[in-house]
Amino acid sequence: MKTQQIKTLVNGKESSFIDVTDRGLQFGDGVFETIRIHQGKAVWWQQHIDRLLDGCRRLHFPVLPDVGTLQKEVNELLAGSETGTVKIIITRGNSSGGYAAAEDSIPNRVMIFTSGLRHQSKAKQGIVLGVCEQPISGSQQLSGIKHLNRLEQVLARLECQSNGWDEGLMLDDRNRIIEGCMSNLFVWQKDRLLTPQLEQTGIKGICRERVLSLAEENGLNVEQCELDLGDLQHSDGLFVTNSLIGIWPVVQFSCLQIKERQFEINANTRLLQKKLEADICSVD
Amino acid sequence: MKTQQIKTLVNGKESSFIDVTDRGLQFGDGVFETIRIHQGKAVWWQQHIDRLLDGCRRLHFPVLPDVGTLQKEVNELLAGSETGTVKIIITRGNSSGGYAAAEDSIPNRVMIFTSGLRHQSKAKQGIVLGVCEQPISGSQQLSGIKHLNRLEQVLARLECQSNGWDEGLMLDDRNRIIEGCMSNLFVWQKDRLLTPQLEQTGIKGICRERVLSLAEENGLNVEQCELDLGDLQHSDGLFVTNSLIGIWPVVQFSCLQIKERQFEINANTRLLQKKLEADICSVD
Repeated sequence: MKTQQIKTLVNGKESSFIDVTDRGLQFGDGVFETIRIHQGKAVWWQQHIDRLLDGCRRLHFPVLPDVGTLQKEVNELLAGSETGTVKIIITRGNSSGGYAAAEDSIPNRVMIFTSGLRHQSKAKQGIVLGVCEQPISGSQQLSGIKHLNRLEQVLARLECQSNGWDEGLMLDDRNRIIEGCMSNLFVWQKDRLLTPQLEQTGIKGICRERVLSLAEENGLNVEQCELDLGDLQHSDGLFVTNSLIGIWPVVQFSCLQIKERQFEINANTRLLQKKLEADICSVD
Repeated sequence: MKTQQIKTLVNGKESSFIDVTDRGLQFGDGVFETIRIHQGKAVWWQQHIDRLLDGCRRLHFPVLPDVGTLQKEVNELLAGSETGTVKIIITRGNSSGGYAAAEDSIPNRVMIFTSGLRHQSKAKQGIVLGVCEQPISGSQQLSGIKHLNRLEQVLARLECQSNGWDEGLMLDDRNRIIEGCMSNLFVWQKDRLLTPQLEQTGIKGICRERVLSLAEENGLNVEQCELDLGDLQHSDGLFVTNSLIGIWPVVQFSCLQIKERQFEINANTRLLQKKLEADICSVD
């Protein structure tokens, strides 16, 4: 196993430290993106940057990060690296005490490059998916923003760890399936492909959007709708997506409320994996 | 105006920087306390530490911070300082990538001392209180924990700033009043003192607990109950509390939904302020 390399920039300078008054640490007052690096290039860069800026706007940051600067810094961070991930964190800036933010608060930016990709065998072999007790909440004001308030996901992830699941689904307070701790869910019903609509809460993953497009381009019938655990009981297959892992097919679904199920990985899931891989390789 | 002094310790060492992989920054995966320093001593220290430890337990930190170490470090930080605040942040530790936490994750601790106390005139003159559009959400799993996921409070506080309110109330999704952005609410109905019960969400402030005790000790009729904006329409006075500010009486209540109201500061509020000040001074 190769040693993992980590490189970090804080506000453009090589550093792995940030001021303790940073509002990201103090309040989770910031946004982030986790971007796959393939053949030295940032996959779906524009989509990630668009969501990052949209988050900053919706959190009313007085100053937006400069996209040219982010691009320049990512290039600097990647120099010579082929494969890995870049995490970009943008916070509102430093705090002078309480929740109140200065009107001219200057955002801090953190970039973390980690070499290599983990868990790649799971795309081929499939995963065990569970259902977390930790619900997903959050007000509509924060929905869809990839912000730094991630305690619900952390607690849900602990459930996955202690149950031996690769991933766990999170439901809202009305028992609708929203997403996985770190992924979006897709459900096959015969050859229809369903995924939770995410108008009230949850994050519309960049990879989810790509999969929706690729499915349509390939003549598959896709639908964003309300889904509950009963829908999974009668489904013909499941997979989850995120920007780093691509598509993970589910081979075992583990749930207290409904019967445990095993799934074969169907041909359409394999087709979408192939199309997605081609999409990733076509980045320039 | 005296210059504000700031001193910081990170994991016991004089430093104002923390690793960018800290899970507090990455996910808000931590807890905090903000403690008033009076005559060189930490007011209500034991209550703050109890809540801090309770939060770490409920977030399933594998290792709890050592109370003796926290005490020693606070003493070091305060050496020679009379008045101010200490903020203690405890995070689960450093992250190695995703939401998953190492089972032997070692917490990081940050202590920030800021000299002086702000806004002291408001306790005497009273404040303008508004009602924020930003609701307070959160699952029961996280309720009452003073954790680092504070974006709702940050957004609510921005509303206070843009409306010129000193503080703003936050309601839950059923329009029940929960608390202020940075305080707990008390409501006079004649000589009965009411405060929102906080079983589902919100934070039971240390100062709130002290005020409840002092009110009872002084023969006042206190009650924790559900409250909505209609209850404020018919109230005979309001005040808010937190550990740093003590009691702020409300002299003006500003709300779109019900008529704006002016309040006199009543004798019982002044009595409780006096009793609370004595309680703070009696710390040893």
